[in-house]
Amino acid sequence: MSKEITSRQLDYAQWYNDLIIKGGLADYSAVRGCMVIKPYGFTLWENMRDQLDRMFKETGHVNAYFPLFVPKSLFEAEEKNAEGFAKECAIVTHYRLKSDPDNKGKLIVDPEAKLEEELIVRPTSEAIIWNTYKTWIQSYRDLPILINQWANVVRWEMRTRLFLRTAEFLWQEGHTAHSTAEEAVEETVKMLDVYANFVENWMALPVIKGVKTPNERFAGAVDTYCIEALMQDGKALQAGTSHFLGQNFAKAFDVQFLNKENKQEYVWATSWGVSTRLIGALVMAHSDDDGLVLPPKIAPYQVVIIPIHKGEEQKAAITEKVKTILQELKLEGVRVKYDDSDNSRPGWKFAEYEKQGVPVRIAIGARDLENNTVEIARRDTKEKMSVSLDGLSVRIINLLQEIQQAMYDKAKDFREQHITPVDSWDDFVSTLEKKGGFISAHWDGTPETEDKIKELTKATIRCIPLDAAEENGKCILTGKPSNKRVLFAQAY
Amino acid sequence: MSKEITSRQLDYAQWYNDLIIKGGLADYSAVRGCMVIKPYGFTLWENMRDQLDRMFKETGHVNAYFPLFVPKSLFEAEEKNAEGFAKECAIVTHYRLKSDPDNKGKLIVDPEAKLEEELIVRPTSEAIIWNTYKTWIQSYRDLPILINQWANVVRWEMRTRLFLRTAEFLWQEGHTAHSTAEEAVEETVKMLDVYANFVENWMALPVIKGVKTPNERFAGAVDTYCIEALMQDGKALQAGTSHFLGQNFAKAFDVQFLNKENKQEYVWATSWGVSTRLIGALVMAHSDDDGLVLPPKIAPYQVVIIPIHKGEEQKAAITEKVKTILQELKLEGVRVKYDDSDNSRPGWKFAEYEKQGVPVRIAIGARDLENNTVEIARRDTKEKMSVSLDGLSVRIINLLQEIQQAMYDKAKDFREQHITPVDSWDDFVSTLEKKGGFISAHWDGTPETEDKIKELTKATIRCIPLDAAEENGKCILTGKPSNKRVLFAQAY
Repeated sequence: MSKEITSRQLDYAQWYNDLIIKGGLADYSAVRGCMVIKPYGFTLWENMRDQLDRMFKETGHVNAYFPLFVPKSLFEAEEKNAEGFAKECAIVTHYRLKSDPDNKGKLIVDPEAKLEEELIVRPTSEAIIWNTYKTWIQSYRDLPILINQWANVVRWEMRTRLFLRTAEFLWQEGHTAHSTAEEAVEETVKMLDVYANFVENWMALPVIKGVKTPNERFAGAVDTYCIEALMQDGKALQAGTSHFLGQNFAKAFDVQFLNKENKQEYVWATSWGVSTRLIGALVMAHSDDDGLVLPPKIAPYQVVIIPIHKGEEQKAAITEKVKTILQELKLEGVRVKYDDSDNSRPGWKFAEYEKQGVPVRIAIGARDLENNTVEIARRDTKEKMSVSLDGLSVRIINLLQEIQQAMYDKAKDFREQHITPVDSWDDFVSTLEKKGGFISAHWDGTPETEDKIKELTKATIRCIPLDAAEENGKCILTGKPSNKRVLFAQAY
Repeated sequence: MSKEITSRQLDYAQWYNDLIIKGGLADYSAVRGCMVIKPYGFTLWENMRDQLDRMFKETGHVNAYFPLFVPKSLFEAEEKNAEGFAKECAIVTHYRLKSDPDNKGKLIVDPEAKLEEELIVRPTSEAIIWNTYKTWIQSYRDLPILINQWANVVRWEMRTRLFLRTAEFLWQEGHTAHSTAEEAVEETVKMLDVYANFVENWMALPVIKGVKTPNERFAGAVDTYCIEALMQDGKALQAGTSHFLGQNFAKAFDVQFLNKENKQEYVWATSWGVSTRLIGALVMAHSDDDGLVLPPKIAPYQVVIIPIHKGEEQKAAITEKVKTILQELKLEGVRVKYDDSDNSRPGWKFAEYEKQGVPVRIAIGARDLENNTVEIARRDTKEKMSVSLDGLSVRIINLLQEIQQAMYDKAKDFREQHITPVDSWDDFVSTLEKKGGFISAHWDGTPETEDKIKELTKATIRCIPLDAAEENGKCILTGKPSNKRVLFAQAY
C-alpha cells in the first residue's frame, strides 16, 4: 500500500509530491532544496525542451553558453536586479579544500584560497550577458542579437517544492538586444506568444496572457509579460515570463551602439524564460488520484503494450503479434514501449503505467489473438475498448490526438468555470475562500492597494490581461475609480 | 589586418587562440578561466552533443539530472576521488548578499548567511550520484542502471586555455551501476568504443585506444581507459576517458544489493565522459593558417553560397537560381547558408567563411547563370572547380562525404608518421625534441620511472594501447625488463 497516491481531497500537497515521487519524475537529494530529475522526468523535460528549442530557432534565435558565475561587481551593476536577487544567492568564496589537520580523511576550506572577488552562482544571466554584449555591439549592424541559453540557475529559496520551487533548476533564458524600443517590445510579445503556443498546444494547458503590475515585475524590467495557468486546487501558476528591459541593462553596463543617424544610443533589451517549473504545472493541472496524466505530445511513452498470458508459448505468440504493432507505430513516430518483463503481473503493470501517466495502454491476451483484437485503455478518461488489430496504428494516432485535445478542453472548461467576475469586497473574499480560481475585479492601480489585498487574502494580481476590455468600475477594496479589470488569485 | 590569424609557424598557441576567437567559436569572459561559447561554437557543440546523445541512447542509456552542488561530507567520502579534486574546487559558503552599509549601492556577503556545511560545485558527479543510487538499488533486479548526464562542471584550474582547459566546462558524464565486475568492465570498454567511433567518424580524428598507467588514472578508478589523439604540433590530447570504478564508490557510499544468491554485495560501477575539450582537439587537429577546417558531419553550416553580382538586377536573378539550390540541398538534409548580405564584398565573405571552416563554398555570378554553372571551393584542400548546376545536390553530398574522409585520412597519415618506435634513451630525447608525436617505447612498469621521465622530458605515458603486442624489451630509462611498448608523448 506504500505505493498508493494520497488523494487530492485528503491532502493536495501530499498528492502532488506522491505524483512526482511515485510517478518516477524526480527524487529528493542530499542538497537542501535541490532535486534529482530521474530518467522518466528528464525524458519529459527533453521532449518539452526540444519542442521549445525548435520554436526558438524557427523564430530566428540561436543558442550560446555564458559562465555559471557572476563576479559580485557585475552582479550589483544593475541595482534593481541585484536587489531582487541578493537575498537568495549561492556565493562562491573559496577555490580550494585542504586536509583537515585535526581530522584524518576529512577536508576543510583552505583559508588561503579565498577569492579576491566573490562569485555569485547565476540566479539569472542578464549581468554576465550584458557585460559580454558590451564587447559585441558597436553599431546598428551588430543588432539584433537573438540569443537563447539552456542552463541551470540557483536561487536560494527558503521553502522549496519539487519542480515548483527548487534551489537549483533548469531553464532557458533568452537575452536579446535591439536598436529600437519598438523592436524590443515586439520581441517580448512574440516570445510570450511562443510560450502560450507551447503551453496550450503541447502541454494541453490553457493560459492567460497578461502584463504584471509593478509589484510583481521582474527586478530590472520595464514591463513583465506573463502567461498564467490555473491548477486543480484553484491556485494560479505563472508558467512563463517575457521581459521588456528597456535600456536598464544597457545603461548599467554601458552598452551603446552607433545608430543609422551616426549617434551613440543605448541598446534595448528583452529577456524571457521558462523552467522545469513547467513540469510542476503539468503535473498539477492534469493528474488524478491514480497518478500522472500526461499529454501525448510530450509524454515519454505515448503507448505502452502489456501482454496477458499464461506460459511461455502464449507469450511468444503474443510477442510475435506485438512486433508488427511496434513496427507500425514506430514507423508513424509513436513513442511506444512493450513491457513483457516477467517480474510483475499485468495488474501491477496497469497500475504502474497509470501512475506514470502513459496516455494509451494496449493489453493483448490469448483471446485477443483469436479474435484479432486488442484492448485499448485511455489514461485520461479511463475508458476501455476492444478494437480490431486491422488499422490499429491509424486508430492509435487519432486517439492520441483526441486525448491531447480532450485534456486541453477539460483544463479549459475548468479554467473558464474558475474566472469569476466580482464587484464587491465581500464577494471577493468569499469567492477566494469557497471557490478559488481567478477573480476578475477592478483595482485602483496603486501598489499600496495591491499589498493590502495580498495581506488580507494572500491573493495577488496575477496579471492585467492583454485582452482586458476598457470598462469603468470601482476598486473592490478602496472604491476608487478603475478602467479595466485585473485577475487576482492565490498563486504558487 | 587585425582579423588575420597568426601562423602556426610563428606562434602555435596564438594561432590556436586566433582560430577560436576569430572563427567565432568562443570569447573570453569576465570570470577568471571561464569562457563564453558563442552561437557558432555552440551550434558545433550541439551537433556533437546530439550525435553522442543518439549513440548513448542506442546503447541503452537514459539521461537524468543531478544537483550542481555536492555537500562537503559527501565529497570527501571516496577519499582518493576527494583528494584528486580538492585542490581545484569552487566552494559555496554563503547563501545571501546584503547592502554594504559603508558603500551605497554595493553588496557584501552577509556573514549571518553562512552555510552549516559548505557546498562544492561539482567537479564530477560520482559522489552525489552514488549517494542517490544508494536509495535506488536494493536488489539485482534494480541493476544495471545506465544513466548519463549532460551538465556543467567546475575545476579551478590555474592555467586555462579556451576549450582545452577552462574552469567551467560542459560535458556529459555517464554513471552506470552493475551487478558484476565483468559487466562493468564490458560497459567501460563499450563506451570507449562509442567515443572512438564518434571521434573518428564524426570528428574525422583518429585515436588510439588504451589504458592509463596508475599515475594518470582518474581519482577513484580501478582502471581508466582513454582515447588519445595527436595534434599538429606533435602533442597528444586525451579526447575521452572511460573508468572502471570497481566497488570503490559503492563502498564509500555503502551501496549494496541482494544478488541472485540472496547475498548482499557491493555494486560495481563505471563512469565515462567527454567535454567541450573535444572542440579544442577538433580545432587543433584540422585547422590551417587561414582558419578553422571543420568536418562536414558536425559543421554548423556544411555549405555557404555567396552571390557575386553587380547591381540589384543581377542579384535578383542569382537569388532566384539559388532558391532552387537551397531547396534541393535542404531536402537532402544539407545545412546550407545563403549569404546575400550587402554589408561586405564577396572577397571578404570568402575569407570570413574560410576562417569559420565551412567545408564547401559555392560562388555564383552572372557568367555562371549564363553557363548554368557554379564555382565550388573545398575548404580542406582549397581546390576550386566549376561545375554544372545539373545534379548539383548529389555532387555536393558526395563532396561532403569525400571531404569528411579526406580529413580523416590526412589526420591519420600525420598520426602514423608520428608514432616512432624508440629503443634508447638518446633516441627518445631527440625524437621528442626534433619530431614530437607518440613514442612507442618500453617502460619498466613503475610509477617512479614514469615520474622521472616526465621530470626529464615533460613526456608522460599517454596509454598502454589495447592492441599492444607482447614483446620483450628493456625500459628506455632504467633498462629493466618490459613485456610491451607503451606510448609516450608531451600532452595538452
